Amino acid sequence: MLEFRLVQGSLLKKVLESIKDLVNDANFDCSATGFSLQAMDSSHVALVALLLRAEGFEHYRCDRSISMGMNLNNMSKMLKCAGNDDIITIKADDGSDTVTFMFESPTQDKISDFEMKLMDIDSEHLGIPDAEYHAIVRMPSVEFARICKDLSSIGDTVVISVTKEGVKFSTRGDIGSANIVCRQNTTVDKPEEATVIEMNEPVSLTFALRYMNSFTKATPLSNTVTISLSSDLPVVVEYKIAEMGYVRFYLAPKIEEDEDETKPQA
Amino acid sequence: MLEFRLVQGSLLKKVLESIKDLVNDANFDCSATGFSLQAMDSSHVALVALLLRAEGFEHYRCDRSISMGMNLNNMSKMLKCAGNDDIITIKADDGSDTVTFMFESPTQDKISDFEMKLMDIDSEHLGIPDAEYHAIVRMPSVEFARICKDLSSIGDTVVISVTKEGVKFSTRGDIGSANIVCRQNTTVDKPEEATVIEMNEPVSLTFALRYMNSFTKATPLSNTVTISLSSDLPVVVEYKIAEMGYVRFYLAPKIEEDEDETKPQA
Amino acid sequence: MLEFRLVQGSLLKKVLESIKDLVNDANFDCSATGFSLQAMDSSHVALVALLLRAEGFEHYRCDRSISMGMNLNNMSKMLKCAGNDDIITIKADDGSDTVTFMFESPTQDKISDFEMKLMDIDSEHLGIPDAEYHAIVRMPSVEFARICKDLSSIGDTVVISVTKEGVKFSTRGDIGSANIVCRQNTTVDKPEEATVIEMNEPVSLTFALRYMNSFTKATPLSNTVTISLSSDLPVVVEYKIAEMGYVRFYLAPKIEEDEDETKPQA
Repeated sequence: MLEFRLVQGSLLKKVLESIKDLVNDANFDCSATGFSLQAMDSSHVALVALLLRAEGFEHYRCDRSISMGMNLNNMSKMLKCAGNDDIITIKADDGSDTVTFMFESPTQDKISDFEMKLMDIDSEHLGIPDAEYHAIVRMPSVEFARICKDLSSIGDTVVISVTKEGVKFSTRGDIGSANIVCRQNTTVDKPEEATVIEMNEPVSLTFALRYMNSFTKATPLSNTVTISLSSDLPVVVEYKIAEMGYVRFYLAPKIEEDEDETKPQA
Repeated sequence: MLEFRLVQGSLLKKVLESIKDLVNDANFDCSATGFSLQAMDSSHVALVALLLRAEGFEHYRCDRSISMGMNLNNMSKMLKCAGNDDIITIKADDGSDTVTFMFESPTQDKISDFEMKLMDIDSEHLGIPDAEYHAIVRMPSVEFARICKDLSSIGDTVVISVTKEGVKFSTRGDIGSANIVCRQNTTVDKPEEATVIEMNEPVSLTFALRYMNSFTKATPLSNTVTISLSSDLPVVVEYKIAEMGYVRFYLAPKIEEDEDETKPQA
Repeated sequence: MLEFRLVQGSLLKKVLESIKDLVNDANFDCSATGFSLQAMDSSHVALVALLLRAEGFEHYRCDRSISMGMNLNNMSKMLKCAGNDDIITIKADDGSDTVTFMFESPTQDKISDFEMKLMDIDSEHLGIPDAEYHAIVRMPSVEFARICKDLSSIGDTVVISVTKEGVKFSTRGDIGSANIVCRQNTTVDKPEEATVIEMNEPVSLTFALRYMNSFTKATPLSNTVTISLSSDLPVVVEYKIAEMGYVRFYLAPKIEEDEDETKPQA
């Protein structure tokens, strides 16, 4: 038997909104230590990794590790029926082919049970080794989302270049080109408004803006986003989930596009 | 001659918004006692009954009873041109084939006259007998609207079951099933937040969610909604209009669906 | 070389939003005295004239007068990437075929450069002679926008009639007719809420509502709008831009429609 009770239910709603457009079906892996998911996006380009640690739940019981295959769009439809202040409990009996989402209103006057059918999903769990990154940028998540959205109106790819002074986001398209520079800035009133750069060596990598924009659906989960870059590794775009875990998105750089940027335009 | 002056003009705008999607054309019956309407929806499944009593108007003059046929969509277009704080006056001369809606801004600096052509509409007035209901549920209108909307994302019909403890709304669809229970609750700070159940005998009836969702367009008219249920009568979903009258929606239960619910799923 | 720095960058964003739906491509004329534009709309019915005086900029340098052809839709895409509190600088080198828009965030932590290709556009500058108008109406811009939008739900044209007492906006369509009268009113708390009429002789002119609605896209630029009417001249709908200049829209009256209004309806 499995029962997870999350007082701040809106967190789970936000988690689903952040990944459901990228991933259709996925296995949620439940174990004694937490609730996690790892899945490729439907075009097999980006990888999503989610972790919600057992300690973050008010009540967490998982008698034996199981993997529950869910359609994330259907799961999102059900979680949207939870109020933002509702307590959400996820329940499943051993061997059952359904999962139940229970929503309790703060006053306990309204109790909802939503039962969803589980699916069998083939998936292989990729080991993601810990890696050293050339540069790690931490910045306000809203700022990063705004930059990705703005650059999409000009071009299809973004070049992210990090130096000690700041991080530059560039694009180029039919109507012109754009460069946005965010300077390192640690002397702000609120720590979540800081732009902090840890750099071992300068790095400049190109990514598809379409995916970056998908990742920024996770913006409501956290005030800050961390972008870890290395020239020979996928970028990691991480949104921490307060006290509980994270949503991480991995995306390989575009090698060809990167060369194009240094070539003269035909 | 006929002249009705309503200081709280936004009320009339809300009345139109609540019924215009359900009913295309309808006769407004004007008499010395008030302004009323009774009409079937365009698929002849649901019935709408509106009453605005003469006492609720600042000025109410109706020399002889007449029936004015109006296209509710066109009437709504005109009423949307009234500001939310405008005073609305409805005027018609005897024998005229038009009706005039006059809008006065609170400062009287802007006066608008909208003249609309009347229509000849065949309609039979159904007598709706007073009835005894097995159960009457009064609950916050916003809560009822939210439940109907939420359940629509899962299924097409709702089973409403009333017991002394509360009212349960259930549905079932391809992706799973849902039950939402609202407990009787009369100890709230504001009376309009109460859920009050008057029950003579338990009742469980099935309705098309499409119509229920249409009815909830009337939510802005009232903080509370009253749902009257009997196994052999159409449900009445009533929104009271402060001091003036009501909008009532009648809908017959779905007999077949009700049986389906008790059958085991194939 | 050319460099204009505008601290209140949101003004330039609003200017573009006010004209980009009406005009596709246009030459911006830059001279020592200011930054201006004159262009016909794409169907060659309405004329737009924009002026931003040099004095209104924090820094304004224009070594020699030049004309820069821009696609307004592309320019608007770039300006939308500026934050509402950003300082905007427009820069171009002599002989360059591009223009650069630079956006600086208030804290100077984020600096963006957007480079746009210029176009060659044939245009003839029309001389607009100063004229005497029969009537000039100044009214709240939001009120004028609301009236044009409301009347569009009833008819295609608006008759604007001015007398000493007020200004009347009328329309007629399939579902009925509408008259909206705004009375002269100078005794309001805030001067921008006044409706002021200067009249030499009564005037009544008919215009296409489609264009009037386009003009009201400039509403965010100014609290008031000035409508100048003469029976033998295009109407001028003017939105002043605080301390800097104006956006003016010119539209010829519809002669035929005007006659129709006085004919009995068939």
